[in-house]
Amino acid sequence: MPEYKVVLVEPKSPGNVGAVARAMKNFGLSRLALVNPCELDETAKKRAKHANDVLKAAKTYKSLKAATRRSAFVVATSGIISRNDKHFIRHPLTPREIAWRAARVKGEVALVFGREDYGLYNDELLLADILVNIPTSEKYPIMNISHACAVLFYELYLPQTTAVELIETSKLEKERLNRFFADLLDAVEYPNHRKEKTKIMFRKLMGRAVPTKWEFYTLAGIVKDAAKLSKVGTKRRKRNGF
Amino acid sequence: MPEYKVVLVEPKSPGNVGAVARAMKNFGLSRLALVNPCELDETAKKRAKHANDVLKAAKTYKSLKAATRRSAFVVATSGIISRNDKHFIRHPLTPREIAWRAARVKGEVALVFGREDYGLYNDELLLADILVNIPTSEKYPIMNISHACAVLFYELYLPQTTAVELIETSKLEKERLNRFFADLLDAVEYPNHRKEKTKIMFRKLMGRAVPTKWEFYTLAGIVKDAAKLSKVGTKRRKRNGF
Repeated sequence: MPEYKVVLVEPKSPGNVGAVARAMKNFGLSRLALVNPCELDETAKKRAKHANDVLKAAKTYKSLKAATRRSAFVVATSGIISRNDKHFIRHPLTPREIAWRAARVKGEVALVFGREDYGLYNDELLLADILVNIPTSEKYPIMNISHACAVLFYELYLPQTTAVELIETSKLEKERLNRFFADLLDAVEYPNHRKEKTKIMFRKLMGRAVPTKWEFYTLAGIVKDAAKLSKVGTKRRKRNGF
Repeated sequence: MPEYKVVLVEPKSPGNVGAVARAMKNFGLSRLALVNPCELDETAKKRAKHANDVLKAAKTYKSLKAATRRSAFVVATSGIISRNDKHFIRHPLTPREIAWRAARVKGEVALVFGREDYGLYNDELLLADILVNIPTSEKYPIMNISHACAVLFYELYLPQTTAVELIETSKLEKERLNRFFADLLDAVEYPNHRKEKTKIMFRKLMGRAVPTKWEFYTLAGIVKDAAKLSKVGTKRRKRNGF
């Protein structure tokens, strides 16, 4: 089972933070991270009910990047994302699709929830391996943050009741594959103006696939070799002027 | 699709009623019935946000029996039931099991939620056709009523949607990508005895990622170029004997 860490980015309502803590404890989660949070007053405690221990143990961070530094896998909610209409964040997965992927990760999995009013900024979204979107009515799609938490936690809790094969995947291997892929784009002289977009696409693709350690290793080896050889090929082609 | 009717029995917190109304609208529900409710004050309205229409249209009843008189099917939550330990309420179903059963009912389906502190009395439980229990941590199983609503509404909403946005992807593109990947393995002189296994790995990986048409197209282009250039690079390397 992964170590889930719930990350709330700049929550504004203490009541919401308390309600999230309660939902966490209901589904066996205990690690709460708060990025530049509001002050946790009596309302927060009242709404947390018997999950005051979760509130008390919450850690605060100055940025989402700092809060997810040790996360092997970062899941972000996309409730408000559609407004930005960024092509690279299309096709978020449903909580159910996320659940079975996340359950197989060994290590820290961050569950990131954006601001009540603005969601996540683009640079924050880029930190995510995978995006989740709860299917809701078009007439009123914006859920209360603690409700969205409850639904996601519920889905993540279900696989724990059955045995799931764990996937050992590390941040290191992921970064290695991404680096080789970037090298490959350079080697095949991929158009500069499309590089960034394509790198993000590849990361998201791998995020959805959740490769095993062996798969990461195998793919990284091939991409690394291809990058090296393509570089030679590109040079050769240039020299021969074709 | 059934006509869902949400029934709250003697809710004590106006905030909870508001939050339930919001969760209802998030999942396309509009009919709220309240049995001997607390007064719906400003807190209720505030928590309902854009679901004030649901709150305003709520009907009040003097008993659960009256509220469910026209219901073809009555679903009751069993969060607090275990305390009563009644033999007739053994084996509650999960929200997922309920969802697919309820979706097939023609007519009114009542979703009954008990008191925040005491749940439902035995004579009220006897009115239910079926009991639902949300799987939760044994350490703190009691959910906030609006959280329990959100989870149940979410599950009931899913069968109504073809949910997931369809991803346009064709067999042709998939086969094209797989062919280029095979070419790449040849070009980087990947060990013959491992080729088949690695091709299968790549196919499975892509199968899990479910790429969009654009993602297939982009990736295929890169793999194709890499295969071509790597082939040149490999030849060059061989000629130079390194």
